[in-house]
Formats: sequence, C-alpha cells, structure tokens
Amino acid sequence: MNNKLLIIGGVAAGMSAASKARRIDSELEITAITDDQYVSYAGCGLPYFIGGKIPEQAQLIARRPEDFAQQNISVKTRVRARLIRPEQKCVVTENLETGQLSEESYDRLLVCTGARPYIPSLEAINLEGIFVLRTIHDSLAIKAYMHQHIPKRALIVGGGYIGLEMVENLLEYGCEVILLERSSHLLPNMDEDMALILTSYLQSRGVEVRTSENLTGFAGDSRVREAFTDKGSLPVDFVLLSMGVVPNSELAAAAGVELGIRNAIRVNDKMESNLPGIYAAGDCATTKHLVSGQEVYIPMGTTANKQGKVAGENAAGGSARFAGVLGTGIARAMEMELSRTGLCENECRQLGIDFISRRVKSRTAAHYCPVSGEIHVKILAEKPSGHILGAQIVGFAGAAKRIDMLATAITMRATVESLIDMDLAYSPPFSPVWDPVLVALNQF
Amino acid sequence: MNNKLLIIGGVAAGMSAASKARRIDSELEITAITDDQYVSYAGCGLPYFIGGKIPEQAQLIARRPEDFAQQNISVKTRVRARLIRPEQKCVVTENLETGQLSEESYDRLLVCTGARPYIPSLEAINLEGIFVLRTIHDSLAIKAYMHQHIPKRALIVGGGYIGLEMVENLLEYGCEVILLERSSHLLPNMDEDMALILTSYLQSRGVEVRTSENLTGFAGDSRVREAFTDKGSLPVDFVLLSMGVVPNSELAAAAGVELGIRNAIRVNDKMESNLPGIYAAGDCATTKHLVSGQEVYIPMGTTANKQGKVAGENAAGGSARFAGVLGTGIARAMEMELSRTGLCENECRQLGIDFISRRVKSRTAAHYCPVSGEIHVKILAEKPSGHILGAQIVGFAGAAKRIDMLATAITMRATVESLIDMDLAYSPPFSPVWDPVLVALNQF
Repeated sequence: MNNKLLIIGGVAAGMSAASKARRIDSELEITAITDDQYVSYAGCGLPYFIGGKIPEQAQLIARRPEDFAQQNISVKTRVRARLIRPEQKCVVTENLETGQLSEESYDRLLVCTGARPYIPSLEAINLEGIFVLRTIHDSLAIKAYMHQHIPKRALIVGGGYIGLEMVENLLEYGCEVILLERSSHLLPNMDEDMALILTSYLQSRGVEVRTSENLTGFAGDSRVREAFTDKGSLPVDFVLLSMGVVPNSELAAAAGVELGIRNAIRVNDKMESNLPGIYAAGDCATTKHLVSGQEVYIPMGTTANKQGKVAGENAAGGSARFAGVLGTGIARAMEMELSRTGLCENECRQLGIDFISRRVKSRTAAHYCPVSGEIHVKILAEKPSGHILGAQIVGFAGAAKRIDMLATAITMRATVESLIDMDLAYSPPFSPVWDPVLVALNQF
Repeated sequence: MNNKLLIIGGVAAGMSAASKARRIDSELEITAITDDQYVSYAGCGLPYFIGGKIPEQAQLIARRPEDFAQQNISVKTRVRARLIRPEQKCVVTENLETGQLSEESYDRLLVCTGARPYIPSLEAINLEGIFVLRTIHDSLAIKAYMHQHIPKRALIVGGGYIGLEMVENLLEYGCEVILLERSSHLLPNMDEDMALILTSYLQSRGVEVRTSENLTGFAGDSRVREAFTDKGSLPVDFVLLSMGVVPNSELAAAAGVELGIRNAIRVNDKMESNLPGIYAAGDCATTKHLVSGQEVYIPMGTTANKQGKVAGENAAGGSARFAGVLGTGIARAMEMELSRTGLCENECRQLGIDFISRRVKSRTAAHYCPVSGEIHVKILAEKPSGHILGAQIVGFAGAAKRIDMLATAITMRATVESLIDMDLAYSPPFSPVWDPVLVALNQF
C-alpha cells in the first residue's frame, strides 16, 4: 500500500506542498481538504479585485481542483477538519454540505490552516457594513455592499499592507476614505520618518489619516453609521477591519502540537512540528528571522509558498530546509510604493542591537526623464561591524522593488563597506548615475 | 603655496573628481580644462533628447562652469590639452577660440579625456547624413538634420546600447529604421538566446534587423543615399554609426603613460597611472573585472563617476580604492528592457570557466495584474562551486532593473544555493509570488 499525505488547507502553503510532494514521489497518495469552495487562489490580489483592476474572479484562481486531479492530487472542498487524532493517524472531517462526519487517515499530515483576520470584541462589531478581507467570499461581499449601498465614508481600521492597498480600491467607488491606526504611525513595521512621507502623500490625495487612535466600537441601525474611537466618533457607512491576523492553530494545538510565538504552530526548518509525522507551513506556522535569529510570526504569501514547498518535499520523503525570512514586504498605496526588509529601528532597539541609520532622498530615474519619481531610501547597519540590518524604501515609479537588492545583501551578510562601489545598472530611464541605494550606502 | 590639481576633461569622471577633491581639501587649487563648451552633461540622455522625450537641452546639463566656480573649482572651456610635460609638471594648452597656446602647471594631473566613437575607414564615410552620437553637438546636428531632411530610411550601424536606444528615438521622426550588426546577434555582450528575444520584438514593431552583416561603405550626392554591406546595398538617407568607442589616450601615451587593454590608460585601483602624480579615470581608462579578475575596458557613465570620485579623493591626498566592475549594463529598446551583469556564455568560454546556465520565462507582476509584463531571466553559475558568474534579463514593465539583485549577489560572491530561499518583496503589482529571479535560481 502507498503512503498517504493528508493536507489540511487548500491555498498557498497547502497546494504548493501538494504539487511539490507529487514531483518528489509519483506514487504517494495525496489528499487536500479545505472548508472553502475555492482552492489555490491569489489572496493578495483581492484588494485589486474589489477595485475592479482585476475584472474577473476567475483571474484570481491559479488552479482548480480538477487541475490538481490531473496530477493525481485529490482535493476535497467544503470539508472541514474537526479533530486530529495523532495516535490513530487520522483526521475527523465534516462535509459542510451534508454535515456528515467521517475520517481521513494519513501517514504524514501537513497542517496549512492559514490565519484569520483579527476581529476585536467591540460593541456592535457585527453590524452590516463592517468587513474583513481574507477570502474570495469576503471580497464578493464587499463588492456587493459597495454596489448596493454606495457608501459615502469608508473607514479602514489598520494601516498595514492590506489597509493601504484598499485605499485606492475604495476610492474607485467614489467614497471618502479614513485610515485609522492605533500606532503612532502608519506601517508600524517601518520607521516613523518613512511612514510620515506616506501620511503626507495620502493626505495630499484627500485621505484622512488618524494615528495614535484606538477603535472602541460602532453604532448603526441595520447598517453601520458611526465608529467610536478613544478620541471621538466618526460618521461612516463602510468599515474594513485590517488589524492583522491570528493563526488558525487551535485544531493542531488540541491534538498536542506545540505552539510558538503569537500562538502560531512551532516548526523547525524542515517544517516539522513537535509531533512525529505532522508538519505545518504557511500563515498558521512560525518561522525564523534571519537577522535576529529569533522565532517570528510574519505571515506572508511568499513565505507560505516556500514553506509549503519544503513541507511537501519532506513529507514525501525528501530533506529540504527553509532557512527563514527577512520580513520583506512591499505594498502600493495609490501611486506610492512602500517596501522594507530586515529590521527597522524599533526592532533593533527591542533586540538591543546597536545601529546607525542613514536616509536619502533621490530619484528613480535620471532627473531629466519623464518617468523619474521621488524615492527615499533608509538603511540600517550594525555598529561597529557595518553589517546591513535592514532597509526601507518609500517612493514612486519603480522605487520599492529596489528593496530586493538589500534583501539579497542581508541574505549574504553584506557590510555597507562591501557594497559602496557596486556596479548597478544605469541608463537614464532606469536610474540616476548613482542609484539611490548606492547613494544611501555612501552616506555611512 | 597650495597644491594644484589639474584635470583634463569636463564630463563625468573629470567633474566628479573635481567635486570630490574639493570636499577632501578645501584649500587645493583645482582647475579643469575641456575642449567642449559644455561640462558636466548627461551624455547618456542624448538619445532621448534627440527623440524629444527630454525637451530642453538645458535639462541635460547637471552643472555649469559658474556652479563649479562657487565651489572654487576653475573650469576652462574651449581649451584643448595639446601636450603633457611630466618633467615640467605642466600641460601645454590651446585656446580654441583664439588659437593661443599656453601652459598650465600642476602638482597632480588627472586625465579624464574620455572616449570617441569608433569610425571605420570606409568609402564616403564623410557624406552628409552620417552621424555619431557622443556629445551635445552631435545630438544637435542630428536633430537639425532630421528636421531639415525628414529622412525616410534610417540606418543604425551597431546593435549595442546606444544603437538600441536610438531605435525608438528615430521612430519618433516617422522614418523606417534598419539595425545592422556585424556579430551574429544584437547586443554582442549578451547571449544569442536572449538577444533573439529582442530581435523578434523589434521585428514585430517594424524594425529591420540585419545581423552577421558588415558595413563596407556609402554612396550619395550631397547627402548619403546608399549604404553598402558584404551582403548588398541599402537605400538610406540617415546613418548613425554606433560601433563602439575608442579611448582618448594618445595625449597621455605621448607623455609616457602606459596603456593597457584596448589602448586605454592603465590604472591601478587608486586610479594611478605608471607616472607619479598622474591619474586617469573614466572612459579613457582601464578597470578590473570583478569576476574574471582581468583588466578590461568597459566604458560606462557609472564607472566614470566612481573612478572620478576615487581619483579626485586620491589626487587630493586621500587613499580611496575602486574595486572594479561587473560590466553591468541596461538599456531600453522601445518598450523592451535589456540588462546584463557579470560574464555571459562567450566570456566564460574565452576564460575557460566551466559553467551551467538556466533560463526562465515569467512575469514581472502577478499574471492577473494589468501591469504584468513578460520577463526572461538567465543566470550563469560556475561548475561545480555554484558561484553566480553572470545574469541577463530581457522583458517589459520593470523587468530589467532586477539585474541589480544579481549584481549584488555577484559582488558578495554568492552561490545559487545561498539564494534560492531569498525573502524577496511580493505584492501583486510588483511581482509574482515567486519573483522571476528566484524562479531562475531554483532551476539549478
């Protein structure tokens, strides 16, 4: 009899694992179960689907169950895992259409249960017009509401990536947008000086930015009409809660799987949990920060894909490892691009790392080129070694993807000194003679 | 009395050196002489000035002599260096307005004489309508000719960066464009498989591409009417010769300065020539290739700026070093972007380096994003070490600047293995979940 790999979860980590496991072992029995009807969809594209920049829902679906079937991977949708029984090596499942319970046995189990939006316990949080954005269902509900009610004032709670990406997509509906962030600045995983550039830009584009302000509740009739904060009340008729996510780790924890930071499933670099034969990957799992060396929970689509691939390979008998992450992130807020990698100032301080930082303002292309946009580059280096610890970029017109250069540098444990002469690509439509990253490196 | 630094040359290397020397030593007497009337101009912007994308000539000028005067740097324009007399530590100069000869003394001399376009000795090469493009004067002459004669068939001889950049800018004038390259493919410093992607694209846009074909001469009346090659004749009424450049090293060589590869001035990593007190930098000088370790002549604006800065610092008493180059280059040919760094296949073969190469086709952004463009990434790695030797990118919409990641990697002597997990920036408008560079790295 063949070995059987059972995967709980059908999006980034789960389906990457399934495909990789199949490439490693053509005989392995592979089953993936998911409580959703959609699998393998592009969650990160949902803001743009809401804004109409991605016109068709089908464009978000990378692969359907029937595509996986051709790889001999069985995908069962609308099936929820209810209980993991490690001793029996099986999972109790519920068919969400019929309510029928059954058992799926396994030899290896991969938990890719993902994460769910954090929803605070607040007055009237269940009013119509208050949304989160995580699944295709969420995005369809938001679109339907926008078209039916044509909101005038939209409140986005949380100034992280999703909140920022939703600004331009809500503006498509012609409403005013208010952005509320409880931290002292937007993008709490970047430094305040960089975030303030974004704040100024958003304000110049008519967005109301409110920082250091806490949501306390809502009021309304059939629909939300008012949001309350510790500073007052705001008339609103649409609310998006983008306040971060919580790992779906309860199912695994109940089976004795050890949790780590922020209650995510603790995995080693082979994506193994503490229980033999049980792996975890993606937004439900921890990972290691490559600069600090610490266990972190930074759920990202890229990491989910990489962890899924490693888990799939190992669950199929291979021995792959996932080194960890730099916390690299990028987002677009209207025309402004934002990116970061490694550690920011606050993180360095919390870790007790002595650092120097330098920030420069330059252009993304030769100043005389029409495509040239403003760019701000900030780099942090360790004292006295000069090792690059982190970097942040804010700007326009091709600014932010330059962060990959710095992610590469940190991956290679580069010092500032080793890079100040770098031979980067120059031609007027692509860069000034001195690329902004080189300019920043030359400030140390 | 103060030391005096004399600089021959007023563009990238020379004026970078002057500014850096001033920052190092506020007392140093600094004089720069140039036979041109313009200094510190953006030579790389000239194709776009011709095409009208940079409307004003003044936009090409970074700084004027009076700007340098404010830094107490004396810039003498329309003055040509005629003779370097190392024993007397002086340069014989000619005022090009008056014909007057005089002498400029120096304590340190920096030769930044640049390069000139290669012009083959061919029949009727001096006909009206045959141009090179190097200086602002060249670009003005081309613009005047285009407006006066409205050419119908333009021939570009040489499929390197300048030739390719001129394609879109000549098309602005409504003429047919023929691109002639004597090598077997366009962009001889890239591999044929990558160059063929460019060829197909240019052909699809109506450009006539002729490779493995040698220019043999011209015919015409007052103006050029016909170009001859080893394969036949072409009716043309405009010709741009973009066949590479020749270092202006004769003046230095006549004074006993040692030349290196391709008759460029041989310098060490402090930009010193073989003669004490005489430095050279920029397009007249050699440099070192960081992968092969060999002396190379790869004249580029970025390198000129960096070498100038180092030479200026050292000539002012500092001790800076310039490590060398990777031969990084980037260009845009209409909408297609092209870039390369390190060694290509032919270079590896000539150097006897055993290598593996991998090439992938992907997208610059998530496939469902309107900004997503095709991208081809090719990476070469050394056998068996896995050290990355070089990379090439061809594509659209933000494809080519990704080469900087690979330039960073090669600078850090990265292996493929060390980078396959890299935490690169992902969000749908910026990249697929797996950045194309990561996809390529994962093919090894």
